[in-house]
Amino acid sequence: MTPSVSRYPVPEIQSLPQDMRERILAVQEKSGFVPNVFLALAHRPDEFRAFFAYHDALMEKQGGLTKAEREMIVVATSGANQCQYCVVAHGAILRIRAKNPLVADQVAVNYRKADITPRQKAMLEFAMKVSRESERVVDGDIDALKGQGFTDDDIWDIAAISALFALSNRMANFTNMRPNEEFYLMGRTGH
Amino acid sequence: MTPSVSRYPVPEIQSLPQDMRERILAVQEKSGFVPNVFLALAHRPDEFRAFFAYHDALMEKQGGLTKAEREMIVVATSGANQCQYCVVAHGAILRIRAKNPLVADQVAVNYRKADITPRQKAMLEFAMKVSRESERVVDGDIDALKGQGFTDDDIWDIAAISALFALSNRMANFTNMRPNEEFYLMGRTGH
Amino acid sequence: MTPSVSRYPVPEIQSLPQDMRERILAVQEKSGFVPNVFLALAHRPDEFRAFFAYHDALMEKQGGLTKAEREMIVVATSGANQCQYCVVAHGAILRIRAKNPLVADQVAVNYRKADITPRQKAMLEFAMKVSRESERVVDGDIDALKGQGFTDDDIWDIAAISALFALSNRMANFTNMRPNEEFYLMGRTGH
Amino acid sequence: MTPSVSRYPVPEIQSLPQDMRERILAVQEKSGFVPNVFLALAHRPDEFRAFFAYHDALMEKQGGLTKAEREMIVVATSGANQCQYCVVAHGAILRIRAKNPLVADQVAVNYRKADITPRQKAMLEFAMKVSRESERVVDGDIDALKGQGFTDDDIWDIAAISALFALSNRMANFTNMRPNEEFYLMGRTGH
Amino acid sequence: MTPSVSRYPVPEIQSLPQDMRERILAVQEKSGFVPNVFLALAHRPDEFRAFFAYHDALMEKQGGLTKAEREMIVVATSGANQCQYCVVAHGAILRIRAKNPLVADQVAVNYRKADITPRQKAMLEFAMKVSRESERVVDGDIDALKGQGFTDDDIWDIAAISALFALSNRMANFTNMRPNEEFYLMGRTGH
Amino acid sequence: MTPSVSRYPVPEIQSLPQDMRERILAVQEKSGFVPNVFLALAHRPDEFRAFFAYHDALMEKQGGLTKAEREMIVVATSGANQCQYCVVAHGAILRIRAKNPLVADQVAVNYRKADITPRQKAMLEFAMKVSRESERVVDGDIDALKGQGFTDDDIWDIAAISALFALSNRMANFTNMRPNEEFYLMGRTGH
Repeated sequence: MTPSVSRYPVPEIQSLPQDMRERILAVQEKSGFVPNVFLALAHRPDEFRAFFAYHDALMEKQGGLTKAEREMIVVATSGANQCQYCVVAHGAILRIRAKNPLVADQVAVNYRKADITPRQKAMLEFAMKVSRESERVVDGDIDALKGQGFTDDDIWDIAAISALFALSNRMANFTNMRPNEEFYLMGRTGH
Repeated sequence: MTPSVSRYPVPEIQSLPQDMRERILAVQEKSGFVPNVFLALAHRPDEFRAFFAYHDALMEKQGGLTKAEREMIVVATSGANQCQYCVVAHGAILRIRAKNPLVADQVAVNYRKADITPRQKAMLEFAMKVSRESERVVDGDIDALKGQGFTDDDIWDIAAISALFALSNRMANFTNMRPNEEFYLMGRTGH
Repeated sequence: MTPSVSRYPVPEIQSLPQDMRERILAVQEKSGFVPNVFLALAHRPDEFRAFFAYHDALMEKQGGLTKAEREMIVVATSGANQCQYCVVAHGAILRIRAKNPLVADQVAVNYRKADITPRQKAMLEFAMKVSRESERVVDGDIDALKGQGFTDDDIWDIAAISALFALSNRMANFTNMRPNEEFYLMGRTGH
Repeated sequence: MTPSVSRYPVPEIQSLPQDMRERILAVQEKSGFVPNVFLALAHRPDEFRAFFAYHDALMEKQGGLTKAEREMIVVATSGANQCQYCVVAHGAILRIRAKNPLVADQVAVNYRKADITPRQKAMLEFAMKVSRESERVVDGDIDALKGQGFTDDDIWDIAAISALFALSNRMANFTNMRPNEEFYLMGRTGH
Repeated sequence: MTPSVSRYPVPEIQSLPQDMRERILAVQEKSGFVPNVFLALAHRPDEFRAFFAYHDALMEKQGGLTKAEREMIVVATSGANQCQYCVVAHGAILRIRAKNPLVADQVAVNYRKADITPRQKAMLEFAMKVSRESERVVDGDIDALKGQGFTDDDIWDIAAISALFALSNRMANFTNMRPNEEFYLMGRTGH
Repeated sequence: MTPSVSRYPVPEIQSLPQDMRERILAVQEKSGFVPNVFLALAHRPDEFRAFFAYHDALMEKQGGLTKAEREMIVVATSGANQCQYCVVAHGAILRIRAKNPLVADQVAVNYRKADITPRQKAMLEFAMKVSRESERVVDGDIDALKGQGFTDDDIWDIAAISALFALSNRMANFTNMRPNEEFYLMGRTGH
């Protein structure tokens, strides 16, 4: 028997309000499957809508951070928060966006040892501080990022992505959200 | 000189899109002032909309938890995350909703010593686990809450409020979000 | 029913030895009520006498630290130690001594975000180190304080106040020492 | 340019003493490549010999734990210790020994959420205690494992594997030991 | 050159107020030397008097705890707080009071592994909780101690000794208080 | 009754394979007693051989670190890991090798306060980082050691000794390995 997607009941896609159904079917069309986060959060339609609106505002955005770098932030902080769903699912997306089959596993375990640039290590060091001890953020942290060429807008993005996945990691850990099996292999063979 | 509301620029209310402006003016009408979280997050309209949609879905909801209990979760977890804005602002709302001038300061410092019911202590113990070490949540935690009479729906609410304010606490700590001075005295004089 | 002042029996003031009774009545005369710490510790007269002698030696002293700054140290470290009595009672005293209705709540939650001077932040950073990880205190910490203009005598005061309230926080947490309701509102209305 | 295998020089295999060379060539014969741990530790021949003798005594052993379970212990504790080499390399071996392409990533992030048996969760809970806070091990921990059917010999194996990889994780983190690229994909396609 | 007794100047015994001088000379008479804590704290006469009054009230007291058990609490909590002076000096006193040359080193490192009774382990478990995380003390902790036969009075003693040495450990770590060389060997040869 | 040497059965020396028996008898000849680590680990002959081979490769080695410095690393990290056997047994060896009756107790409690050189403090600071948070080791740590005159070879030794005793501390904590009573007094009387 397949383990369940969530500790909570998962609605039938056909029974969902039209906007949610359309969103889910569009993802399915593009990815070939429905990532379980859509099913698990659909248990609460208003929270579903708010979460994905927040997600898209930060992850689909243009700006000083590449899409791969945004995913790196998710993978590193989700590793620190021990969130299985986010490490596996966003690890897959990171591999694809970075066109790099190795970087996700490296960043999930220890970003200090990953094959990334010093600028990316500075980005992740700050993301981890926001994720794990935001109470200690001080002006010097912001200055250090500017010294690496990040703009005010980039810095907000780094912090906000860390903050959004602080939420997401907690919901996934709470609901026992299960990553789809498809994610484990995505982006690993590189062609 | 008054310290600033946020590390980032704060837009003029009149320059904001209509939906945001209306929301802010409605709060101002009701409270007599504009809580700074509205001004600080307005720096990013899409994130503003998503955050308040998420907030309202959880905090304005009917259900097994009273509105005061929802605020208790915010105050306790924000204390643990050392978030000045959330402790001060939601402390005020908690005093008002609970009609209790003492409970917010008690819960912010140490919920174990607060004048609340054993059921509320169990609620906050779980909220704190989600907030601070969600990776350790196991079935036994859910069972313990059910033993106190919480429903599945209540339990999702407790976890989701903790998770949303995990996000909010990080954004406030990152932006140096400053609580309005009005909050400090609200609900303390009880009439 | 009013919750009790302490997990332990509280003696009648009239039954106490004369020196303790006089001390307590003097405080009552000045404050309008008897702070519960006097009642809770009176359970053990010799410890009562030693505690208040230590307290007065540090908190009523003239020197490079103002009385408000001494209370700031108490409030910040008691917040970190999650001591309800000390945060509430000394928060009140801090508001009065600093003639500032906001600073106590700010410092209790996160001194890094409080409206205090850089010199006061350096003072609290050291106080927190003594309170939470004194084993790591090294010469460099002392030098940093001297760079902010603190004298050797001031530095002893900062450390000793942190150390005394490390004791006090533990006794209050152990005895479930309950703050008097009067403290919550003191110093908030500023006139 | 390929990042280096270790912070330290790596000897030529042909220059190594015969026993080490034979061991390495045998692994190469079997796996198709030389895992970098052999190259990195060859910098110190006597430590190399001792490490692999210890490793084989625990990991190649018959007994109440399957070989896959032994690897599970390595992957879970190495995840907690943030050791990139051990998570990636032993994750590959775990996938192969368990004939399961998913379990390694699950266990590396959070064993509590992995598709493993309650007995295996009890095994990993104890392994994590030995790995992260062995000072707290008490008789009750041993009794709990016996309640799951583990023998004294099994329990020694669990503890000793955790202890050996406490050593190994530290050496890999110290030397910046880099996992071979071959490991990332091994055992993922299941045929 | 002998390292100094304290980071702060140490007064000449002859220059001290009579009560302090008499106290110090009495200790010297009894022990054969002046323990450095008397010299280091004499820098501040009022704090000296308060500290030793508190100390004597708890450590020289009759009651359900033996004097050796009181010292055990000091040694175990001072080990956890990494206080060199208190571990070395009170380790010596513990050896003498327990007439046991081994117990101090055992308790300083890990009381769970010491040759002490289950009742003493329960005592030290509570002392460590008060010392390291007093905010978590709950009614169940008190009940557990009563189950081991401790009275309310004994339990206050355990907590208060932990609390007093939380103060003392911080002052010793702050001042670099140096243990007298005499302490290292005291009570080790047992006759 | 004497407490047992280990949670596991201890073999008779005469029943052991010849190489182990000879090793143990040689130690007994030299020390006058058989240190319990030999008896406790003899429960598993192959692990015994591997452990002592690793131990000798690091602890009996010539090089930039003196034998006393190697023992200092063991004592400091074993103190942090709360390993009674290693603190007591290697404390004795450290006293003898350093010809210093005080240094072991100082280093076991808090190396920052010990009578050792700044170079030795830098050595122990790095050893503690490897022991307690090896995931954070970065190039700057290596550079700092080189600034104190340590060679690459010395630095490997520091890290490897910390790593080996990370293993050893866990086995001793797990098995309740009991230090021989002889160790407590060795090297204390200095002649």
